[in-house]
Amino acid sequence: MADELTTALAAGLPEGALLTDPDVTDAYARDMAGFSAAGAPAVVVLPRTVEEVQHVMRTATALRVPVVPQGARTGLSGGANAVDGCIVLSLTRMDRILEIDPVERIAVVEPGVVNAVLSRAVAEKGLYYPPDPSSWEQCTIGGNIGTGAGGLCCVKYGVTAEYVLGLDVVLADGRLLRTGRRTAKGVAGYDLTRLFVGSEGTLGVVVEAVVALKPAPPQQLAMAAEFGSAAAACDAICRIMESGHVPSLLELMDRTTIRAVNAMARMGLPETTEALLLAAFDTPDPAADLAAVGELCTAAGATDVVPAQDAAESEMLLQARRMALPALEKVSTATMIDDVCVPRGRLGDMLEGVALIAEKHELTIGVCAHAGDGNTHPVVCFDALDPEESARARASFDEIMALGLDLGGTITGEHGVGLLKKDWLARELGPVGTELQRGVKAVFDPLGLLNPGKVF
Amino acid sequence: MADELTTALAAGLPEGALLTDPDVTDAYARDMAGFSAAGAPAVVVLPRTVEEVQHVMRTATALRVPVVPQGARTGLSGGANAVDGCIVLSLTRMDRILEIDPVERIAVVEPGVVNAVLSRAVAEKGLYYPPDPSSWEQCTIGGNIGTGAGGLCCVKYGVTAEYVLGLDVVLADGRLLRTGRRTAKGVAGYDLTRLFVGSEGTLGVVVEAVVALKPAPPQQLAMAAEFGSAAAACDAICRIMESGHVPSLLELMDRTTIRAVNAMARMGLPETTEALLLAAFDTPDPAADLAAVGELCTAAGATDVVPAQDAAESEMLLQARRMALPALEKVSTATMIDDVCVPRGRLGDMLEGVALIAEKHELTIGVCAHAGDGNTHPVVCFDALDPEESARARASFDEIMALGLDLGGTITGEHGVGLLKKDWLARELGPVGTELQRGVKAVFDPLGLLNPGKVF
Repeated sequence: MADELTTALAAGLPEGALLTDPDVTDAYARDMAGFSAAGAPAVVVLPRTVEEVQHVMRTATALRVPVVPQGARTGLSGGANAVDGCIVLSLTRMDRILEIDPVERIAVVEPGVVNAVLSRAVAEKGLYYPPDPSSWEQCTIGGNIGTGAGGLCCVKYGVTAEYVLGLDVVLADGRLLRTGRRTAKGVAGYDLTRLFVGSEGTLGVVVEAVVALKPAPPQQLAMAAEFGSAAAACDAICRIMESGHVPSLLELMDRTTIRAVNAMARMGLPETTEALLLAAFDTPDPAADLAAVGELCTAAGATDVVPAQDAAESEMLLQARRMALPALEKVSTATMIDDVCVPRGRLGDMLEGVALIAEKHELTIGVCAHAGDGNTHPVVCFDALDPEESARARASFDEIMALGLDLGGTITGEHGVGLLKKDWLARELGPVGTELQRGVKAVFDPLGLLNPGKVF
Repeated sequence: MADELTTALAAGLPEGALLTDPDVTDAYARDMAGFSAAGAPAVVVLPRTVEEVQHVMRTATALRVPVVPQGARTGLSGGANAVDGCIVLSLTRMDRILEIDPVERIAVVEPGVVNAVLSRAVAEKGLYYPPDPSSWEQCTIGGNIGTGAGGLCCVKYGVTAEYVLGLDVVLADGRLLRTGRRTAKGVAGYDLTRLFVGSEGTLGVVVEAVVALKPAPPQQLAMAAEFGSAAAACDAICRIMESGHVPSLLELMDRTTIRAVNAMARMGLPETTEALLLAAFDTPDPAADLAAVGELCTAAGATDVVPAQDAAESEMLLQARRMALPALEKVSTATMIDDVCVPRGRLGDMLEGVALIAEKHELTIGVCAHAGDGNTHPVVCFDALDPEESARARASFDEIMALGLDLGGTITGEHGVGLLKKDWLARELGPVGTELQRGVKAVFDPLGLLNPGKVF
């Protein structure tokens, strides 16, 4: 079987595009999700053209071999993990920016373009591609589309889905589908473009994307506000949003996270505070907006409000926030990162509930959050070498999702379902939703070859 | 059959919810699309509750009777037109605003809420629901969701789809599906919410919607710029968008449209001009933004640039634009309104092509356009009592869509496919896209009872 597969694939691929050495292919087995099982790929294919992707899918369909599409494998839900005997289809070599058009405010890209590469290329033309997941220096646009990635920008600019106008997709049987449009608007037929965003490679393989761009906003200016309790910080967030402010960033770090960041990078963040709120504006007069938001923070009980004086100070605050995950990863030997999004008004309940779960399971759980969106990332720190502690970590991770659903939230704001949360997806969707989603999957992938076992 | 249907429906509906008198039901036969066929409904049902909608769909499935969901029937594509013997399901009595939440920036509404009613209700709380189709005083949110409606706001704020976070949908078999979320973000499973937006009642009946709101922006300030040619006006549009401006409105009216508006309302618009460009900003300093855009217009060859001095003058300019369609409707006995959206850079080619089509067919075709989006509305004026002229009108209408596709555009930017453009949809989607869209339809409506003959 493996020989037949290798021979058939090689017949339509150039030299170097097909990897079969298990020592090499094993390196493609998993993304960055803890706790998620990963199988051994039969082969890894690194195509450079649409035709090569079509050849892979035709071969996979003919031989009934599962295919796992991959970007940079920075995902946090196991959505890119291999299954035994699969073809790993890594799109990282399809990394050309085909077009950047300032009049249409679009870019046309191959899926393997790295987020930061696109962001910098459009910035040179005075444009802005907002989605900025924390892995933006490594992750690919194709991967961002697969997972529906978000980032710090979302409170003002939304998630990846809002920037995908049209897609070229190779289907399970190798046919090419073009969805969507290059125009600013369009409502011709069902919105298949959005169906592919967040579908984690289970419906087709994205080989080209038309993404929307914004004009580059003014440089953002940030501030930090310290609070004596998470509840007070959450109150401030509600006041800010209720008052009609549109911050370009509104982030929360709890005491555990602050300490972890200080321990890693000596940032000098205030360790006596229970919750640190970071806000930023990229408006024409950010200092005035920050002053207004600072007053709301004070009214909500902030113990200190420190606006950045310039872009450099702003950038330092953002760096501290961007360090949250790496810093928490150093607390123990392993972490699991939740991604529960709740209504903003329930953020206080969410943080309080997470603290109780941490206490109950005697674990360190640091929380950083895209607070303006209600999107929390409780990070469960545990010793992966201790089976009993690992079990408690897994239980905590699940209890956090249950809490999120109880508060009217979702199990995933921006990381996707993958393997890690697939048991939870059915609970969120309910039986009718699950049945219809499976029906949709069957339309696109009747043989079930595309990323099997993910999402559902 | 009709008796059996009436009896079965009546068993689960309160008095007054079921209309059977043909003189009454015939009034529900069609929306505002010219040229579209409409059948005679068997009955009209006006439910007030989700349970009543479920009863209607269960009955329809049991008796295999087609169902045509309707809002205010202000649509322009025949998407709400009855088919012979159908149940017309008019959602207009489900018109409650269930919730407006300034912290979450959402509203929860029933489908029959009129767009303007929602817009005013949220404005009282300092919030803004952007989508503003020209029928906004009559059309319903459910209808807006069905067609994917747009409006003047889209150049800055986008179409209806971008404001729908979650839906309650009664399926063809009467089951209730809940999609999406109430939170700012969420990527759990395939995006069925967006699949329903623009699906014209062919996949299910929307009975509740969670819509996103924005903080109310500052009052917008407008200006008008006159051009000696459509090409110069289109050049100005490209310069404005390329320069990174974010107008809250960027509209174009051609000479035919200007004259029609003057004839109807004595607006005193400049009749010697070939194209009038309206721009507005709702930024902190709109006068400064208008001044910058005025300079770009002058550079592109504007013969005159007239900024409004205050809100009242701005409103007058907007009124002139809002009158464009009614005014063109007075040119002859009938109109057909195209809805072709092209890349902004091809707007000049689009307008030139439409002028040639009008000349060829010896018809008046006025063009107004959401120019900032590239979304043109060529309005073909003709005498419906003259079969030969009607045939030329239909030919022009189709040639305009063909031109739009040739220019890389779409046959519908915001009005939907309905009956009027269904032959054209397959041409835009291609065979693979059409096959998959039909497959999706079959998942949700295996018996083909929901709004049959529409879209496909």
